[in-house]
Amino acid sequence: MNHPLTIGLDFGTDSVRAILVDATNGEILASSVKNYPRWSEGRYCDAASNQFRQHPLDYLESLEAVVKGVMEGVAKERVVGIGVDTTGSTPCAVNREGVPLAMLPEFAADPDAMFILWKDHTAIAEADAINAYAKSHGGIDYTMYEGGIYSSEWFFAKILHVLRVSQAVRDAAFSWVEHCDWIPAVLTGNTNPLAMARSRCAAGHKALWHEDWGGLPPEEFLAGINPLLAGLRERLFRETMTGDQAVGTLAPEWAERLGLTTNVKVAAGAFDCHFGAVGAQIHAYDLVKVCGTSTCDILVAPQVGKCIPGICGQVDGSVIPGMIGLEAGQSAFGDVYAWFLRLLSYAGEVKLADLEKDAAAIPPGSTDIQALDWFNGRRTPFANQKLTGAICGLNLGTTAPMLYRVLVESTVFGARAIIDHFRAQEIPIRNVIMTGGISRKSPFIMQMCADVFQLPIKVAACDQTCALGSAMFGAVAAGLYPRVEDAMEHMGAGFDAEYFPNHDATPVYERLYQRYLTFGNLLEKGGF
Amino acid sequence: MNHPLTIGLDFGTDSVRAILVDATNGEILASSVKNYPRWSEGRYCDAASNQFRQHPLDYLESLEAVVKGVMEGVAKERVVGIGVDTTGSTPCAVNREGVPLAMLPEFAADPDAMFILWKDHTAIAEADAINAYAKSHGGIDYTMYEGGIYSSEWFFAKILHVLRVSQAVRDAAFSWVEHCDWIPAVLTGNTNPLAMARSRCAAGHKALWHEDWGGLPPEEFLAGINPLLAGLRERLFRETMTGDQAVGTLAPEWAERLGLTTNVKVAAGAFDCHFGAVGAQIHAYDLVKVCGTSTCDILVAPQVGKCIPGICGQVDGSVIPGMIGLEAGQSAFGDVYAWFLRLLSYAGEVKLADLEKDAAAIPPGSTDIQALDWFNGRRTPFANQKLTGAICGLNLGTTAPMLYRVLVESTVFGARAIIDHFRAQEIPIRNVIMTGGISRKSPFIMQMCADVFQLPIKVAACDQTCALGSAMFGAVAAGLYPRVEDAMEHMGAGFDAEYFPNHDATPVYERLYQRYLTFGNLLEKGGF
Repeated sequence: MNHPLTIGLDFGTDSVRAILVDATNGEILASSVKNYPRWSEGRYCDAASNQFRQHPLDYLESLEAVVKGVMEGVAKERVVGIGVDTTGSTPCAVNREGVPLAMLPEFAADPDAMFILWKDHTAIAEADAINAYAKSHGGIDYTMYEGGIYSSEWFFAKILHVLRVSQAVRDAAFSWVEHCDWIPAVLTGNTNPLAMARSRCAAGHKALWHEDWGGLPPEEFLAGINPLLAGLRERLFRETMTGDQAVGTLAPEWAERLGLTTNVKVAAGAFDCHFGAVGAQIHAYDLVKVCGTSTCDILVAPQVGKCIPGICGQVDGSVIPGMIGLEAGQSAFGDVYAWFLRLLSYAGEVKLADLEKDAAAIPPGSTDIQALDWFNGRRTPFANQKLTGAICGLNLGTTAPMLYRVLVESTVFGARAIIDHFRAQEIPIRNVIMTGGISRKSPFIMQMCADVFQLPIKVAACDQTCALGSAMFGAVAAGLYPRVEDAMEHMGAGFDAEYFPNHDATPVYERLYQRYLTFGNLLEKGGF
Repeated sequence: MNHPLTIGLDFGTDSVRAILVDATNGEILASSVKNYPRWSEGRYCDAASNQFRQHPLDYLESLEAVVKGVMEGVAKERVVGIGVDTTGSTPCAVNREGVPLAMLPEFAADPDAMFILWKDHTAIAEADAINAYAKSHGGIDYTMYEGGIYSSEWFFAKILHVLRVSQAVRDAAFSWVEHCDWIPAVLTGNTNPLAMARSRCAAGHKALWHEDWGGLPPEEFLAGINPLLAGLRERLFRETMTGDQAVGTLAPEWAERLGLTTNVKVAAGAFDCHFGAVGAQIHAYDLVKVCGTSTCDILVAPQVGKCIPGICGQVDGSVIPGMIGLEAGQSAFGDVYAWFLRLLSYAGEVKLADLEKDAAAIPPGSTDIQALDWFNGRRTPFANQKLTGAICGLNLGTTAPMLYRVLVESTVFGARAIIDHFRAQEIPIRNVIMTGGISRKSPFIMQMCADVFQLPIKVAACDQTCALGSAMFGAVAAGLYPRVEDAMEHMGAGFDAEYFPNHDATPVYERLYQRYLTFGNLLEKGGF
């Protein structure tokens, strides 16, 4: 068997994973994970101020380790393509050569010279400034394709924050790159910021890039937000690339370091869940929910024809080239369940499985308890970071399993609200595909999703859909398939469970969901 | 020392307590408690339907045991008076001789022929009917001195319920008695329902008795609620008695059974917390809070001059003869703390003291969490049994001690709302006296009360204020003191702790309290 192989690289929050995949049938031949060493030690972070920074060497060293890990005993000539996904928006200041400032001796320990991880919230004031200016400057609202609300987690807010607080970085930064731009650039040896390939996905979802206004927003808009952003536009980019396109071939230095050949094509990068949706075999009007501590919800549509408010973004080609990729998500999902376990842990250890079993034995709607899942704010529909979790309907007979049940219900209702929002915007949803740990561990929650969504739920069989999606894009970039749809067809792992709505339960959940909406509206309007 | 002695009898929910008291100085010489035997076995009750009934023999057998218990080794001639308090409203159907029907062989096991305990909620529909008729019949609203909302826990609702559901009781019942009427009647050998002394406290707070309309509401009103009540008024009572008056002397049979003399004067009975307020040495414009699982709040005022809406009742002489006794209360207080411990106990045992210590270390207002204490509905101000407990402001960092703190705060805010309600009705509150287990066990909660009420808090030194109040009334009935105020002065146990507002904390709590009111209003108006 000399099937061609591709490598999918998935840079997560704590670690990078590589999988080595048979490009003809999608079989995963090897997998390797490496934690970022400096990050593991908590360096450059300050949880109290929500500062989360990652050193570029963490990425490069781990990348080398995992690729070597999967290549052990494999003939290097068989590898023909690499795809890359990362978290995001995770930008970093670079010099004129595209070198992250933290890789220069004078910035080696400066957090402001490192990658600013997606969950870093130091730029709240800067996001507020961007939003205020976007709504008041009198011209186009350039946040319109990013849901109309710019987040502190995103590109320009983080750049502006660092430019404000660090004179040294301000003086040394020539341009800025996203993590998912920089890895393919490094691998292909083209890190010139003015020439390196930029991710359509990252640019469109986080950098206000849209073809309606010829790429990035105009100079006067950026400079109008803050003079510190003046002149930056010319040192960023105009063009972007989708994941099916090859950025180039592996540079000799990196071919050597990774034990691969210089024939390997490297695909343009993107954000993890977008490639994850491809790994989960998304098709038009499928909603792929990547469910972990939070959720990232990806939908693709051949055309949208309007600007959808209150989601994270809509970008032509961010998922599948030629289709609009729409991103939404819940800011807490598994985190809500983990919170309740932590609360109980004050008294002792509880197994989630026991709690879930007891909760599942309680019929839906048998109590008047109602919860709101906004324990980490609300991401979509209509981002509002100020919202919080809430529970009402408590009485002296309320038990831990009852509370757990309504907390689970609240997260599923939060998911339904996103589905309803798409529908209200005339975007039909044909199938829901769930992926991520919870989708495989909890039939209770998956069945509840089917009952609440009133849609069949398919669970992706692959437990590494992001890395698999990257490997698929690597195969397309290598020319093995003309389109990523073909790669999905041949390399997809399929589904290993399907849940159908239980028509005895749907009316009860419908009533509870409507009450959830009413309760949420009441508290949001009431300022609680 | 041959000081005269009196006995205070306190019939609680689960047991009766007797204390033997030196009537000259209030020293408690002996105390005895006996659980009701049939009740302890759960007989005649059905928690699922909130049916809670007590057999009259439970009262009589326990009464005999506790009086014998305190009299051991004491010369019977020294006892000159007995005072009696009970829970209420706890009515029972009696025959023409005043014998509770359950004491007749044919009704010996019939719950409908027994005392209907205060917390029995089988009469919700009947209370609704009374309220509807009181508001719609076109004449006086006879519920006006009982806060304007008649409860399912009260006299006529319970009577109507039993008359509706039991043909046998309907045929056999000549009249109805309150537990606190019946015990003095039995002890003095005068159980004729038409002649037995009736408690002013019970009649005024629960049976719509008021001198403005010459006693009980007119026949046409009662018959208008439901024809089953027609003719009952003439078989109930016109006159009532306050606790300072002697109902009579101990009947020979009971003097023999209890080991006392027939010289003992028996005072007219009343509800426990009303006598408890006397035991805690209430004076004009003091608020005595009897804090246990719930609270009963008693205030006395020389005159009120208006009808106070939204409290439990206002009755001339229900506490101190010649003053208006006003009753309010919280339907869950310690029960809220116990609920949270039960919730955590799913994971393991927690000591309340540990939780309280951790909660006390968290500064007030340092989280955005806010709770509502209505876990068992709201009793006052403005009864609403449909309300429930609620918590908002939760995030992923919310811990068990944080939640416990805000739950405690919510119960103290509920107490403050009652104080504010009295003030809004132009009833000033000069002092707050706390009594009951929590007042002595939790300096944390008592200090919070002082800070939230912005009033000094005194904690009654006696831990049996209800029984002590009964003993005081026994002394007045025996002629040892002309007025109960004199008995309080000589027999009172004083206070063993006082808490003053911490002026650093009061502004924070004031802000949190205002937010509690806003949150409560929002949920109540929103139907949650």
